[in-house]
Amino acid sequence: MIGPADEFHVFDTTLRDGAQREGIRYSVADKLAIARLLDDLGVDYVEGGWPGALPSDTEFFRRARAEIDFKNATLVAFGATRKVGRHVEDDPQVKALLDAETSALCLVAKSDVRHVERALRTTREENLAMIADTVSYGVAMGREVFLDCEHFFDGYRHDPGYAAAVVGTALEAGADVVVLCDTNGGMLPSDVRDTIAGLRERLGGQPRLGMHAQNDTSCAVANTITAVQAGVMHVQGTANGYGERPGNADLFAVLGNLALKLGLPVLPDGGLAKMTHVSHAIAEIANLAPDTHQAYVGHAAFAHKAGLHASAIKVDPELYNHVDPALVGNDMRVLVTEMAGRASIELKSAELGLDLTGRPDVSARVTERVKELEAAGWSFEAADASFELLVRDELGSPVPAPFTLESYRVIVEHREDGAVVSEATVKVGVRGERVIATAEGNGPVHALDSALRQALLPHHPGLAGVELADYKVRILAGSHGTAAVTRVLIGSSAGEREWTTVGVHENVVEASWHALVDALAFGLSREVGTT
Amino acid sequence: MIGPADEFHVFDTTLRDGAQREGIRYSVADKLAIARLLDDLGVDYVEGGWPGALPSDTEFFRRARAEIDFKNATLVAFGATRKVGRHVEDDPQVKALLDAETSALCLVAKSDVRHVERALRTTREENLAMIADTVSYGVAMGREVFLDCEHFFDGYRHDPGYAAAVVGTALEAGADVVVLCDTNGGMLPSDVRDTIAGLRERLGGQPRLGMHAQNDTSCAVANTITAVQAGVMHVQGTANGYGERPGNADLFAVLGNLALKLGLPVLPDGGLAKMTHVSHAIAEIANLAPDTHQAYVGHAAFAHKAGLHASAIKVDPELYNHVDPALVGNDMRVLVTEMAGRASIELKSAELGLDLTGRPDVSARVTERVKELEAAGWSFEAADASFELLVRDELGSPVPAPFTLESYRVIVEHREDGAVVSEATVKVGVRGERVIATAEGNGPVHALDSALRQALLPHHPGLAGVELADYKVRILAGSHGTAAVTRVLIGSSAGEREWTTVGVHENVVEASWHALVDALAFGLSREVGTT
Repeated sequence: MIGPADEFHVFDTTLRDGAQREGIRYSVADKLAIARLLDDLGVDYVEGGWPGALPSDTEFFRRARAEIDFKNATLVAFGATRKVGRHVEDDPQVKALLDAETSALCLVAKSDVRHVERALRTTREENLAMIADTVSYGVAMGREVFLDCEHFFDGYRHDPGYAAAVVGTALEAGADVVVLCDTNGGMLPSDVRDTIAGLRERLGGQPRLGMHAQNDTSCAVANTITAVQAGVMHVQGTANGYGERPGNADLFAVLGNLALKLGLPVLPDGGLAKMTHVSHAIAEIANLAPDTHQAYVGHAAFAHKAGLHASAIKVDPELYNHVDPALVGNDMRVLVTEMAGRASIELKSAELGLDLTGRPDVSARVTERVKELEAAGWSFEAADASFELLVRDELGSPVPAPFTLESYRVIVEHREDGAVVSEATVKVGVRGERVIATAEGNGPVHALDSALRQALLPHHPGLAGVELADYKVRILAGSHGTAAVTRVLIGSSAGEREWTTVGVHENVVEASWHALVDALAFGLSREVGTT
Repeated sequence: MIGPADEFHVFDTTLRDGAQREGIRYSVADKLAIARLLDDLGVDYVEGGWPGALPSDTEFFRRARAEIDFKNATLVAFGATRKVGRHVEDDPQVKALLDAETSALCLVAKSDVRHVERALRTTREENLAMIADTVSYGVAMGREVFLDCEHFFDGYRHDPGYAAAVVGTALEAGADVVVLCDTNGGMLPSDVRDTIAGLRERLGGQPRLGMHAQNDTSCAVANTITAVQAGVMHVQGTANGYGERPGNADLFAVLGNLALKLGLPVLPDGGLAKMTHVSHAIAEIANLAPDTHQAYVGHAAFAHKAGLHASAIKVDPELYNHVDPALVGNDMRVLVTEMAGRASIELKSAELGLDLTGRPDVSARVTERVKELEAAGWSFEAADASFELLVRDELGSPVPAPFTLESYRVIVEHREDGAVVSEATVKVGVRGERVIATAEGNGPVHALDSALRQALLPHHPGLAGVELADYKVRILAGSHGTAAVTRVLIGSSAGEREWTTVGVHENVVEASWHALVDALAFGLSREVGTT
């Protein structure tokens, strides 16, 4: 029932439906970074947002068109069918959707007659007309059109004839795929299997159907896999299962199951092995702790408590792991160790252009240092530049430190007149000279950055081109004020180059200082390298 | 295929298999507290540990017998079948198991011939004899005996005849239930369904079978439900899905699905409504943050973000929730977001006990302020306490400010000797008095908090009970370092009460200050209100 690889769609909605998760608010830069990661992973479609409804989504599409050269993915704009009683050509929301200039659109429509009557407050017929009009208009405008049938499974249970009519109407109007959404997430795999079988019988032929599952019964991944086994050829999911309420189907578990359990070649060569990295990098961008116990990609997904079977696990790992962890870019761990093994350290170094294959001593030392640092709260998943500095150091070709620190001091004052001011003083040695510089800033880190640049610029004019583009803070472990540790990620850019550095300390200012110093050192090293 | 209620077993293994989760280490007192919670919930069996293998488990059974008067649950001791080549009566591990004096035993046995030969290093025949001997000995000693078939599904795939022989041997020897374990967690629902169907055909009759699923494909809950639909009458799970690697089947999702989707009366009357409380209480004992997004029992399990549909959700909640949240002891929440309209503001206020229905003027002003503040970067989605302070303000009954600020100053120094120190001074007015206080801290916000408490405590002794439990920082929007805004969320607690406040400013210290002041004001208002 499953077609060839190019007829199967992996459709990611991390940036649209996944952003509904409580606590997530992406900047446009965050969304661009996530879109790049998903494209690199090799998904077929990246749903970027709802242009028109959210101004920042409109900006995302404009910038994504200009700035991202997609290798694998097609960008999709999401929107609703035309409004009740309006001509599709005159609907401003539909116009905003087309103005996003994506080659593919995903339209959402009601397929539960109760929602048509009570939420949309229109007739069954008008809802079908809205679907037919909007789908055929999108197709006429040269777009590939997907239709998300909201509340499909509840709707089918209540009135299967109407729910099937919605699907049939969209397909007749030219929709490429009609996606069955378990919007409330209340279905079990048996419900999904029986509903799709019933729908296919009503429709006849080989309808092109998709699945969008929510996780309210904790069955979103199973429901998605069951739908594929029942004949759908398009699956929607989100990175790490992010989404409203208990979330969406976790794309990584779906992909792992499809590729490794059902043998479907759902990603391009090498894609699957990037899953663990992409999962963790997106978590960092979302400023959420990666889920240690996530299937396939979690840090503990292949971690075995030593105990009785440790030696057996060592001899026959395939008897204790359901798949080879390396296939998904993860590692087996027997003892309690932090993060990565040598294989992934070497893989990551190679990605950065640093070949460690002939240097087992260096690999071993880098692995050891990464383990120690990650145990203390550092994270190199999203901080490639800090990782590169560490590897270069162990390779014996360290990036030169642009200065030596004597001391710094930062003062933040909320004054009697209500003004809030930050001032930093740094005392550093630069090329044999002692320099003291003081500067103000919007906040303590900005003030420190300004003072440091003031001190360094005369000797390192390249710093003028280095900008701090992003700053993220996470408090790790330790509740009740004790032993809490702060991790800071700083994103920097110079022209088109972007890099991220990390710093960890119990004091947020000192953690920021570490990340800042690495950011400037890395930026200068590249400046030298490229000029 | 499913028998009457008293023939269906809910078997909890939180204290045995669930304790394999990385990072969990229960004291005996922790285990006793969890056993009481599970008994109160109404599970049929509580597997308490492996007496003999772990000394603290031996102590747990001794104390549980003496101290807990179980209302619903039967305590189960876990152990292995007799050792290779030994008489069962002479096996010290079997003796320790019986010495736990539980009326039920759960024995683990190999059912994959590769594990028999490679890990156990014995013959197929001896393994069957070990099972037959140990089961019949337990039965002869008057115990109800369950047999966990380790690696059953992989074993059945490799050699179905042998795996079925293990099950048949145990049933013939008098095992009450034989439990099929997906130890590596690699199965999909279709695998579970087909395997159980094949096994039942081989065995004939009505074998009493159970299911134990691990979550490595993210399908543990679905696999458990599928097994029940395929005829098992005994399900094993753990609270919150705790367990090795990605964990075990989450007992709460399994129970919610069995009771509310399949209509099986799996818990005594009133049990289901205790699930949310029991889930969170066990998380606290395990010293793990409750999973906000957990199905059925998570804080966000019934939280709706979509501002557009808030009015529809208000009218027809049953169209948007897959089950009534009250059935599992949870609540529906509407999140206040930048897309929020008046309907969701009123709903949210009602949740907090603030009735705005007769006050359209107040609703309108609150909506306006929330929109303005969220446009400027504030987020009330997770900051219920800040939202409540805002609504009370507009209602004309503001929470009293515990002090007035004159000024504050924070200094962070990285000294020449490498020491990093933070010091804060606050100048405030408290009940007519001018107070100046200075304190040090791990970081700038900790120092500010300490100084402020020092200044306020003599006048507000209730502050002693207010703790800062969590601190989150996010940098919003603002490209190229300009106009970036920092959002701080502070989680506070006092006894069992928890609340979150938000602050936004371009300076991280000032943003933290706002959230801190709101946190203390809110904490004090509740203190006054309850005494």
